[in-house]
Amino acid sequence: MTISKAAAIGGGVIGAGWVARLLLNGIDVSIFDPDPEASRKVDEVMKGARRAYRRMLPDGLPKQGRLTFAKTIAEAVADADFIQESVPERLDLKHKVLAEIDTHAPANAIVGSSTSGIKPSDMQVAMKKHPERLVVGHPFNPVYLLPLVEVVGGAQTFPEAIEVAREIYASIGMKPVVIRKEIEAFVGDRLLEAAWRESLWLIKDGICTVEELDDIMRYGFGLRWAQMGMFQVYRVAGGEAGMRHFMAQFGPCLKWPWTKLMDVPEFNDELVELIAGQSDEQSGQWSIRELEKIRDDNLVAIMEALSKQNKGKGWGAGALHKDYVKRLGKLAAKPAVSKAAAKAKANKPKKAAAKKK
Amino acid sequence: MTISKAAAIGGGVIGAGWVARLLLNGIDVSIFDPDPEASRKVDEVMKGARRAYRRMLPDGLPKQGRLTFAKTIAEAVADADFIQESVPERLDLKHKVLAEIDTHAPANAIVGSSTSGIKPSDMQVAMKKHPERLVVGHPFNPVYLLPLVEVVGGAQTFPEAIEVAREIYASIGMKPVVIRKEIEAFVGDRLLEAAWRESLWLIKDGICTVEELDDIMRYGFGLRWAQMGMFQVYRVAGGEAGMRHFMAQFGPCLKWPWTKLMDVPEFNDELVELIAGQSDEQSGQWSIRELEKIRDDNLVAIMEALSKQNKGKGWGAGALHKDYVKRLGKLAAKPAVSKAAAKAKANKPKKAAAKKK
Repeated sequence: MTISKAAAIGGGVIGAGWVARLLLNGIDVSIFDPDPEASRKVDEVMKGARRAYRRMLPDGLPKQGRLTFAKTIAEAVADADFIQESVPERLDLKHKVLAEIDTHAPANAIVGSSTSGIKPSDMQVAMKKHPERLVVGHPFNPVYLLPLVEVVGGAQTFPEAIEVAREIYASIGMKPVVIRKEIEAFVGDRLLEAAWRESLWLIKDGICTVEELDDIMRYGFGLRWAQMGMFQVYRVAGGEAGMRHFMAQFGPCLKWPWTKLMDVPEFNDELVELIAGQSDEQSGQWSIRELEKIRDDNLVAIMEALSKQNKGKGWGAGALHKDYVKRLGKLAAKPAVSKAAAKAKANKPKKAAAKKK
Repeated sequence: MTISKAAAIGGGVIGAGWVARLLLNGIDVSIFDPDPEASRKVDEVMKGARRAYRRMLPDGLPKQGRLTFAKTIAEAVADADFIQESVPERLDLKHKVLAEIDTHAPANAIVGSSTSGIKPSDMQVAMKKHPERLVVGHPFNPVYLLPLVEVVGGAQTFPEAIEVAREIYASIGMKPVVIRKEIEAFVGDRLLEAAWRESLWLIKDGICTVEELDDIMRYGFGLRWAQMGMFQVYRVAGGEAGMRHFMAQFGPCLKWPWTKLMDVPEFNDELVELIAGQSDEQSGQWSIRELEKIRDDNLVAIMEALSKQNKGKGWGAGALHKDYVKRLGKLAAKPAVSKAAAKAKANKPKKAAAKKK
């Protein structure tokens, strides 16, 4: 399935990232965000995203979808077939917002939640009409560039909804990975959380600074993980004997006192200041906007480099990137058709009604 | 300081990786490894490394250093000014090997240990003559490509030894990061161990397969970490408000039940089989050698891509890569000088004596 009209509820860093990805795929989006600054913030993210996509597609972007700011959730979701929720991580707020989406969205619209860790079962209880169409679709920042989206269903989610969500996310260039069992924080954030907790200890105990820790990642295993995950890397490290050898050799280390596993560091002002201060030293010479540009250029360059590997077929995120750029290029090359389609769309009575509100 | 003659003690995946990096930098290496297969194994790694370096330097490699297989540790280290130990991770073995190195190495040779986690203080007690010259120089596989080396001194290590080790590692294209306080597993492996333990739980509990977990890394945060570490990524994610905002927003999550932090999964045959079986499904279509080639091509491509970023100055590992390739290119362009130097070296009485043994 592809999306003909999307709604975004919440326009923070993640919500705006979804909006950018959708619009750059030529899809119309209606957004609801009560923040009076929402329009400016979404516009900033769009600027960055357009800049990044121009690097990917120097011959021109597809005709951008139309963005409408709705005054209510009801208005935003009224004629959408795909709705992505990206409001702050509070269960009460998720309940309130999802109940409202559920009441006003078309019966067969798919509802995706950007939550980083709340179980879909705990959220869909608030949806009285169609809880079966809720899936978690957990993206990674920047949403318009990073392809991964974790797709998770809850107790009431229909398998068909997961399948449709997977198709929807794939249709906008993403890599959906369906999580087999629902747990808090899913897979990506479990790994990130484990590394983050250990990192805080390392900084708190003065073993290294945030810059040194970051360098250890980006000059070391980060380069590995951009193209092969932990298990494939270790399979190769096992050498000729492969994975069983690796496991036999390194398994026992797990019992050594090699991490602060029993403990969570106390999260106080002192720790926040230590880290924020070191972060200023590391990155203070760049504004956040500059860092975003550097990050985006790097990500595009890495994916492009990987798109040429594996005998030209592309590897991992690079293979996906190759397909994505090709598809967007085709979309961009059909301005006449797109314009006509846009015109036809604009003349639809449903759309016109939505515009009047 | 630069190296004029190196010794490698241990020729496994890591030891051979050091040998490859040194030889490709034009440095002579004497290696000791009691494994009768050592020569074949080192040769395999050298083949892979030469292949990767030819991608980096299509116009030709520097004249390769000369590799000598020594029959004893004493013979290997006799005239070396830099010795890297890469024997298996058992303290008794490290003691035995380091004691022998210490007895026979020139007094001012620097001794680096490739240990992934043993504290240098616990190792240098075995060095009766010059424990002050031992540093941990912990590299990441593949050593000939990944630039990171963690440099750690022990209680008896002289600060000057750390400084010289840092210069030595930098002189062969690496990124030395000096760890401020000695702890088991240093920094990189603490982070890897935390993520590895969590990964084993995720597989054991059937949340995902090894392939799905790997995809979550390489289509998601792995792409981020190839160019910015965790703290810089989060600084940017904090948006306009930066690091303090990010910490305030996500700090409390640490106390949520988002990881298996209290516990180590039981490491039994069942778990090994589960993981090894899934690994076969994921990667069984490629031999380890093929995977190594794919990995190396990807790493070179990523570093090359990053070398062109940041207004052409290069970023992170890419900036380093740019310098490294430039330096190797210059070295390659001076064959006459190298040959003469090699001839002069070969005529040295000390070297001739070593060869006779």
